[in-house]
Amino acid sequence: MNKKKFLRETIKHIDFKSFDSTSIIDAMRDMSFTSRDTAVATDILNRMIKDKGCTIFLTLAGSTSAGGCMQVYVDMVKNKMVDAIVATGASIVDMDFFEALGFKHYKGSSTANDKELRDHYIDRIYDTYIDEDELQVCDNTIKKIADELKPGAYSSREFIREMGLYLTKHSKKKDSLVQVCFENNVPIFCPAFTDSSAGFGLVKHQWDSPKKHITIDPVKDFMELTKIKMKAKTSGLFMIGGGVPKNFIQDTVICAEMLGVDVPMHQYAVQITVADPRDGACSSSTLKEASSWGKVETIYEQMVYAEATSVLPLITSYVYHKGDWKKRKFQEWSKYLDK
Amino acid sequence: MNKKKFLRETIKHIDFKSFDSTSIIDAMRDMSFTSRDTAVATDILNRMIKDKGCTIFLTLAGSTSAGGCMQVYVDMVKNKMVDAIVATGASIVDMDFFEALGFKHYKGSSTANDKELRDHYIDRIYDTYIDEDELQVCDNTIKKIADELKPGAYSSREFIREMGLYLTKHSKKKDSLVQVCFENNVPIFCPAFTDSSAGFGLVKHQWDSPKKHITIDPVKDFMELTKIKMKAKTSGLFMIGGGVPKNFIQDTVICAEMLGVDVPMHQYAVQITVADPRDGACSSSTLKEASSWGKVETIYEQMVYAEATSVLPLITSYVYHKGDWKKRKFQEWSKYLDK
Amino acid sequence: MNKKKFLRETIKHIDFKSFDSTSIIDAMRDMSFTSRDTAVATDILNRMIKDKGCTIFLTLAGSTSAGGCMQVYVDMVKNKMVDAIVATGASIVDMDFFEALGFKHYKGSSTANDKELRDHYIDRIYDTYIDEDELQVCDNTIKKIADELKPGAYSSREFIREMGLYLTKHSKKKDSLVQVCFENNVPIFCPAFTDSSAGFGLVKHQWDSPKKHITIDPVKDFMELTKIKMKAKTSGLFMIGGGVPKNFIQDTVICAEMLGVDVPMHQYAVQITVADPRDGACSSSTLKEASSWGKVETIYEQMVYAEATSVLPLITSYVYHKGDWKKRKFQEWSKYLDK
Amino acid sequence: MNKKKFLRETIKHIDFKSFDSTSIIDAMRDMSFTSRDTAVATDILNRMIKDKGCTIFLTLAGSTSAGGCMQVYVDMVKNKMVDAIVATGASIVDMDFFEALGFKHYKGSSTANDKELRDHYIDRIYDTYIDEDELQVCDNTIKKIADELKPGAYSSREFIREMGLYLTKHSKKKDSLVQVCFENNVPIFCPAFTDSSAGFGLVKHQWDSPKKHITIDPVKDFMELTKIKMKAKTSGLFMIGGGVPKNFIQDTVICAEMLGVDVPMHQYAVQITVADPRDGACSSSTLKEASSWGKVETIYEQMVYAEATSVLPLITSYVYHKGDWKKRKFQEWSKYLDK
Repeated sequence: MNKKKFLRETIKHIDFKSFDSTSIIDAMRDMSFTSRDTAVATDILNRMIKDKGCTIFLTLAGSTSAGGCMQVYVDMVKNKMVDAIVATGASIVDMDFFEALGFKHYKGSSTANDKELRDHYIDRIYDTYIDEDELQVCDNTIKKIADELKPGAYSSREFIREMGLYLTKHSKKKDSLVQVCFENNVPIFCPAFTDSSAGFGLVKHQWDSPKKHITIDPVKDFMELTKIKMKAKTSGLFMIGGGVPKNFIQDTVICAEMLGVDVPMHQYAVQITVADPRDGACSSSTLKEASSWGKVETIYEQMVYAEATSVLPLITSYVYHKGDWKKRKFQEWSKYLDK
Repeated sequence: MNKKKFLRETIKHIDFKSFDSTSIIDAMRDMSFTSRDTAVATDILNRMIKDKGCTIFLTLAGSTSAGGCMQVYVDMVKNKMVDAIVATGASIVDMDFFEALGFKHYKGSSTANDKELRDHYIDRIYDTYIDEDELQVCDNTIKKIADELKPGAYSSREFIREMGLYLTKHSKKKDSLVQVCFENNVPIFCPAFTDSSAGFGLVKHQWDSPKKHITIDPVKDFMELTKIKMKAKTSGLFMIGGGVPKNFIQDTVICAEMLGVDVPMHQYAVQITVADPRDGACSSSTLKEASSWGKVETIYEQMVYAEATSVLPLITSYVYHKGDWKKRKFQEWSKYLDK
Repeated sequence: MNKKKFLRETIKHIDFKSFDSTSIIDAMRDMSFTSRDTAVATDILNRMIKDKGCTIFLTLAGSTSAGGCMQVYVDMVKNKMVDAIVATGASIVDMDFFEALGFKHYKGSSTANDKELRDHYIDRIYDTYIDEDELQVCDNTIKKIADELKPGAYSSREFIREMGLYLTKHSKKKDSLVQVCFENNVPIFCPAFTDSSAGFGLVKHQWDSPKKHITIDPVKDFMELTKIKMKAKTSGLFMIGGGVPKNFIQDTVICAEMLGVDVPMHQYAVQITVADPRDGACSSSTLKEASSWGKVETIYEQMVYAEATSVLPLITSYVYHKGDWKKRKFQEWSKYLDK
Repeated sequence: MNKKKFLRETIKHIDFKSFDSTSIIDAMRDMSFTSRDTAVATDILNRMIKDKGCTIFLTLAGSTSAGGCMQVYVDMVKNKMVDAIVATGASIVDMDFFEALGFKHYKGSSTANDKELRDHYIDRIYDTYIDEDELQVCDNTIKKIADELKPGAYSSREFIREMGLYLTKHSKKKDSLVQVCFENNVPIFCPAFTDSSAGFGLVKHQWDSPKKHITIDPVKDFMELTKIKMKAKTSGLFMIGGGVPKNFIQDTVICAEMLGVDVPMHQYAVQITVADPRDGACSSSTLKEASSWGKVETIYEQMVYAEATSVLPLITSYVYHKGDWKKRKFQEWSKYLDK
C-alpha cells in the first residue's frame, strides 16, 4: 500500500452556520444527563455573549482542530463570540497554521497498524492521519519567521501575531484561526508554545544562531493575559479540553491579586471534556473545585462530559442562530497589548 | 422546602421528527473521533433498515428512557425501525410503563442533598428525580396484572404483553413503548425482569399467594429470542448501553448453535456507551471482542463512546428523515411467538 | 498458529493469604485519590466484619473471577467474610463452575486478531482467552443437572445449590466458589442466571423436554434475598462492579418495605468500579445517589474508582491479616432458606 | 468552623522501601486487566534499569506529588532509577518545592463545600487541601530567587537548579525532589513552567523590574532535553499522567532528527493514566499511536489505566527490592548540560 492510499479522504471542518441546532438544544434543555448539560452550557455561552462588558476567553486543548472543528473556532472569532484565545501549541501551529499553509488532515483508522504508518511517515491522532513530510514544512516555516525577527524575548502571543502577518502574505487557505485573529486583533496565547511543531522550528532557529536569536517568554504571556483580565473585569471561559490552557487562564485571577489588583473571579465558565475528575489533575478538575481556588464563580458554570466534536457543533450553531453576538463588537485586545 | 418544590419541572422527551439532523450527520461523517463514529453508526443503522430481510433488535440499558429519550424508542417502533426489544426491567417498567400510568420524571440536580431527597421520598437518577409514592403505584399495578393471570411460568415477554393489554384499557399516556409494541406485535424481552419495579409487584404477588401464582421464566425468554434469531437469519443490533440486554441478544447466536441450528452472526451492530472496555465487563467490551465469540460480524459494527442522550437524537432523526424505513413493514415477531 | 499456541499460559488466581498488604493499606490511608479511597473501603469492609450482627453480601459483576480474583472470593467465604453472594451468571457458571470442572482461563492479548481467535474457537475477554469447546462442556453439565431435577420452578439459588452438590461428587478443582459456598451454606443468587452459560444448558433442557422441565424463578430469588435482609437487619455490601447484582441487593430494602416489614437501609457499602456515574446507569451510580432511594446509609460508604483486579487483593489481604473475621461464625443463610 | 479544623490531617507520603510488593507483583503477572498491566509495566521499568546504557526519563503530570507519592519520586532518584525529569510546573513548584519550604498538604473531602473553603483561603485538589496563604509564600520565594539572578533567558532547568541551590541553604524539609535532584545532578525540566506557582512569582519579578529581569526560555529547555536524548541514545520513559511532559519528552526524537542527528525511538515506555484515548488528546493517546509518529518503540511499552497513587507504590517497591538499580550509577546529565 503506498502512502497516497492512506491519505485519500480529507477531514472537512463543520460549518455551524450551515445548519440550525436551535430546536435540538431547546429540546435538550428538558432532558437529562449530557444532553441537558449541553443545553445549559449553550445558555451560559450565550449569556456571556449578551453580557456586553464580558471578555470571552476560548481555550483549546486536544485535537478538535484536527478533527473537524477548526472552522468552528474561526467562525466564533469572525462572529465576535471570542475575544482572546489560550491554546496548546499543537492546536495553533500543527493544526491551524499547518492547514493555512495548504496542508490537510486525513480520515484514518483508530485500529491502524502503526508500524506500517511509521514506514510511510504518517502520524496518527486516534483515527486521523497527518503527513509528516508536510508537518516538517510547517516546522521550517516557523524557523523562517523566527529567523527574520529581531533577536529578543517574545511572548507566544507576539510570535503568533507574526505568524498571522506571515499568513496575510503567504497563506494558501485564507480562513485560518491564526490569520483571522490577527486581522481582528484577537490575541492568541500558547503558554506551552514549544510543545508543538513550533518547538522544532525554534530549536533549529536557536541551534543555527546560538548567539543572536529569539526566545519565547512565557512569563510575558502570563503577564499579558493577566493584564487583559485586570482591564476586562468581567470574563467568561469557554474551554475545549483542559490542560495548560485551562489552568493558565484560570490563574489570571490569582495573578492579578498577586500584583495587587483586585479582580473578580471569572463569572462564566463552560468546559467540554471527557476527562475523569478523580485523579486530581487540573484537566479534569470540576469548575466547582476551581471556585475553592477563587478562580471561577459557580453561578454560571457547566461541565459537559462529552468528546467535544460531538456537542460543540450543536452549542455553537445555536448561539450563532440566536444572533445575540450581532450586538457585540470586537474588543481588540491585541491593540491594547501592543500599545 | 416541600416536595412540590423539588418536582416542578418535568422531563420532556425529545421528538426526532420535529427537527432534521441530516446536515449535521452528513458533516460529522467527514470529521474525527466521536462525531465520525456517530455518523458511521447512523449509516449502519440505516443500512440495517434498508436490508429488507434484516430483523432489528433494539437493546436498552441505563436510564435514557427517564432522561428524555422515551419518545425516541416509541417513534422508532412506530416507524418500523425496530422489530424486537431487549431491555432492562427498569427501562420498561419503572420508566416507560410508569409514564404510561400518567406519572412523570423531573429535572433535578446531580449535586442534590440526598438525605433531603430521601426525607421527601424522592428518588434520584444522577440529575433526574422520581416520586417514590408514584413508583409504588406502578409496583402495585404490576401485582394487579399478575394477580389476574392464570398461574404458571411466563416469559417476561408474555408478561409485558399483558402489561400492553392492560394499557390499552387503562393508560393515561397512550404513546408508551409497552403499548405501542403491544399494538404492533413488537416483542419486548427483559431477561432480568425482576430487577425493577416489576420485581416488587411480583414478590408481593407470590407473597400473597404462596401456592398459586405466576413466575417469570427467563429460560423461556432466551428460547423465544433465539427462535426469532433462528427464523430471522439476518439481524442487526442497535444497543443503548450494555448490561444484560447486550449480552443476552448476542448470545442467541451461540444458543441457536447449541440447539443444532446454524445461524449467521449478527450482521450489523451499533453500541452507544460511556463504558470503559478495560475492565473486561461485557457492558463495555468492544464489538470486535464479541466477534471472537462468534456473536457479531465486524464488517458493519461501530462503538460510539458517548452518553446516549447527546447523540441518539441526531442518529435517529437522520434515519427518520432519510425515509428508508418507509419501505419496511412490521415483522410482527410477537405473532410468530404466540402461535 | 494452532490453538495450543494461543492457550499456553493459564491465569493463576491470586492468594491474599500469601502476602500481607497491611503496611500498604496503612500508608494509603494518609494519601489521596484512589489510594485513600482504597484504604477507606478496606476499613469499611473490616468494620462490617467486626459488627457481629452484620450480614455481608458480596456482589460480583464483570470478569474478575476469570481475571485472577477467583480465589479471593473463595477465601473470603472460607474465612467467614461473606454470608451471601449476588452475582452475574457468568461469574458463577462460565468462570467459577467452569474451572471447577477442570478447565482454565488463559493469558491473551487485548489487541489480538479476533477473526483468527474465532477460527480457533477461542473466546476473548479483553486480554484473557477461553476455549469455547470447554465452555460447551460446561453448558452441557448444566443441562445434565437440570435434566435430573424434579420439574418445577427453582430460584437460581436453589439451582446453584444443586450445582454445588454436583461438584462435591464430580469437581476436578475442589476449591470453587460454588462448592465452598454449598459446603458452608452460603447462598449464591444470580438474578439474571440465564444470561450465561447456564442459559444455554437450560434452553437445551427445555427444548428437549417441552412439557416437563424446570424453570428458574427470579421472583423467588428476590423474595429469598429479601427474607435474608428482613431477618438479618444489619447488613453490608461489598460490591465488585455494578450491574444487576448491585441493583438487586440494594432493592431488598424497598422490597421488604413493600411487604410491610420495616428494615434499615444497608448500613455499610463499598463498590469497586471503573464505571462513570454521568450516564445515569445503575452500575455507575454513586452510593450517595442510592441513599436518596432509601437503599444505602451514607455513613460508611465508599466508591473506589479502579479496575478491581488492581485493588481487591490489597483490600482483602489487609482484612485477612487483621484477623477480625476469626471472631465471626458462619451465618448459614442457606439453611434458613431451605427450612 | 475555623481554618484549622479543615487543615488537621496532613498527607503523608508513602515510602516504598518500608514494604515489599514483590509477591503481589509476581502474582499480578498471571492475572488479567489492570493487575497484569501493572506487572508488565513493572517489568519494563526494571528492564530499563538493567539496561546499563539506558537513560530513564520520569515524567510527572497531575497531582500525585500532592497526593502522597512525593517520596516515591525522591526515592527513585536517590536509588538511581531516574536520570532526568520532565514535569508540570505544579508538581515541582506548588507541591515539591512548597513542601521543601516546610508546608504541607492536607486530607480533605471531594464533596466539600467549595464556597466555604474559599472563605478560608483553602484550595482543593479533589480530596486534598492546600493553605493558600502558604502557597503565596512559595510564589514569593520564587520571586526572590529570580530577583537575585543575573538578567537573561534561562531554561526552566537552569532556574530549577537555582531553586535546588536555594534549598540547600534554606529548606525545612531536606528530602525534596528539587534538592535531591540538585545534589545528584538530575536535571528537572518544566516545559510549561509558568503554568504554576512559579508563574506568579516570575510575573511579579518582571512587573517590579520591567527593564532588567530574567525570562524562562522553553526553546532552550527543548534543546537541552534533546541534547540528552542525542547523547544517551538508549532511553526509557516512565510517565505518570500525560500532559505537556509526555508530549515534550516524546518529541525529542523528532527534534533530534530535525537537527540532523539520527537517534533511535525511546526504546521503553510506561504510562500510568486514567485518561481516555478516544478524544484524540495527547495525554490519553496510546503508546502504539506514538509509534506512528516515530517516537516510541512498541516492543516494551505498557499503558496502565489506573489512578497512579494506587499502583505506583506497588511498581516502585518491587523494583526497589529487586535491587537491579544497585548496579547503576548516576548519569549526572546536569553536569553535561552545564558544561
